[in-house]
Amino acid sequence: MNERYDIAIIGSGPAGLSAAINGKIRNKNIIMFGNKNLSNKLIKAPKVNNYLGYSDVTGEELKDAFVNHINDMGIEIIGEKITAVYAMGDYFTLMANDKMYESKTVIIATGMEFTKPLKGEEEFLGRGVGYCATCDAPLYKGKKVTIVAYNKEAEEEANFVSELASRLYFIPMYKGEYSLNSKVEIIKDRPIEILGDSLVSKIRLAKQELDTEGVFILKDSISPGQLVPGLELENEHIKVDRNMATNIEGCFAAGDCTGKPYQYLKSAGEGQVAALNAVSYIDSKK
Amino acid sequence: MNERYDIAIIGSGPAGLSAAINGKIRNKNIIMFGNKNLSNKLIKAPKVNNYLGYSDVTGEELKDAFVNHINDMGIEIIGEKITAVYAMGDYFTLMANDKMYESKTVIIATGMEFTKPLKGEEEFLGRGVGYCATCDAPLYKGKKVTIVAYNKEAEEEANFVSELASRLYFIPMYKGEYSLNSKVEIIKDRPIEILGDSLVSKIRLAKQELDTEGVFILKDSISPGQLVPGLELENEHIKVDRNMATNIEGCFAAGDCTGKPYQYLKSAGEGQVAALNAVSYIDSKK
Repeated sequence: MNERYDIAIIGSGPAGLSAAINGKIRNKNIIMFGNKNLSNKLIKAPKVNNYLGYSDVTGEELKDAFVNHINDMGIEIIGEKITAVYAMGDYFTLMANDKMYESKTVIIATGMEFTKPLKGEEEFLGRGVGYCATCDAPLYKGKKVTIVAYNKEAEEEANFVSELASRLYFIPMYKGEYSLNSKVEIIKDRPIEILGDSLVSKIRLAKQELDTEGVFILKDSISPGQLVPGLELENEHIKVDRNMATNIEGCFAAGDCTGKPYQYLKSAGEGQVAALNAVSYIDSKK
Repeated sequence: MNERYDIAIIGSGPAGLSAAINGKIRNKNIIMFGNKNLSNKLIKAPKVNNYLGYSDVTGEELKDAFVNHINDMGIEIIGEKITAVYAMGDYFTLMANDKMYESKTVIIATGMEFTKPLKGEEEFLGRGVGYCATCDAPLYKGKKVTIVAYNKEAEEEANFVSELASRLYFIPMYKGEYSLNSKVEIIKDRPIEILGDSLVSKIRLAKQELDTEGVFILKDSISPGQLVPGLELENEHIKVDRNMATNIEGCFAAGDCTGKPYQYLKSAGEGQVAALNAVSYIDSKK
């Protein structure tokens, strides 16, 4: 049986980190999924002067302060990507690439840097469309598979799947050198729509169509509505109350994904509020 | 004519400070009223470990970081007490002890350390009850005046008023040595109720009644409902939306006075949100 965590935090920007330290201080068994670099947005900030207590620092310096803080508290960032969160009643199941996690509460702190879904992506999710090529690869043995790749990490997945698939189309949505084996066919074109009947049969690109039975879309983060089925949104943001509670009991959200202004301090404050309310929620269920 | 500020911030805890730096960064003409020590609550905190970026610091150390931050930005704390805020339509009038200020927007960040009003206090406000002894002293020349004092600063006001009043009763609600002149009569008793007909005539204490025409209640901060007439409250807190806007247009609030959890980081985040929304409000009126 899986270990059941108290609080699962998705995202390692200021909102997620703040949620993690506050959950940990309250003696909760937390798990945080994110990026060892914390947040690409943060480290790229040339100058931050509105995070109270840090006058005129770089994003990198602020990141270092955050890393020191979580290290001091023994908080680890799990580098796995959560692709779906399901509300199971009194707990949640989180799907990572090749694993499942369970947690009593979830805090969504995934920021706003997600790409819009492709046309057909949501419709065919689970019927040929997936977010984890390595985990679903066995289903596509001997079949034609397309990977729409938003980052370099997708290359490893492509190389792995190419061993099983009859053909592997790799559509890079980023620039740079590609480390792909010779079986991978690089397609430099822009995906428009995923097509099919009950299952995926085609992907339409700007300049061509490809026959394909599987389409994997590998991106940094997926939109909150895709991540948590049933989550109520409002103008592209997760709808939360002043306790950072969403419409799903036990599911909280914090940071950019809950609305503007997109600011580190606002996010950190909200992460704290989300964590403390998650703690109250857990304690109320005892 | 008074200078009209863009943003007046009442309170110098983390919410007020964060509002100030964010307003200043957006090139707004701000004014902040508070305490040079920032917040008595903050400096008394023995250990803070949940303010993201500061692991295991004392409240005093965090205070120093905040002071450095506002000093770096040239932000000053005005040590005057705001006793009332009136919405004038497109601006606000703020009453300080012996001055008036005008501002396009107001951010209330007064925390939760206010004392409950005495029985009769709100009823007789302006009809014998006041919050500034020095400003109203001329009205009480040759009359009996009572000062209910919650802090040492009240002693100076008492000494001043004693020169004009026929009798001056001083009821200290704090412990310590009192530096009062010989005309001031110290009454060690607990105030219960202010009485009168159309004007104040008496104050009832636990053990006695005193005839008095004026009662000054000198405390660190007054409750938000008294401070801003018409402000909507909810369970003793100021009711705000996710933009930290109150029910009064142009009036925002942040920090403990808006609700739990009472936490520095939560307050700082809210101060930022309040300031940025005050900026948007000002810009929308141009």
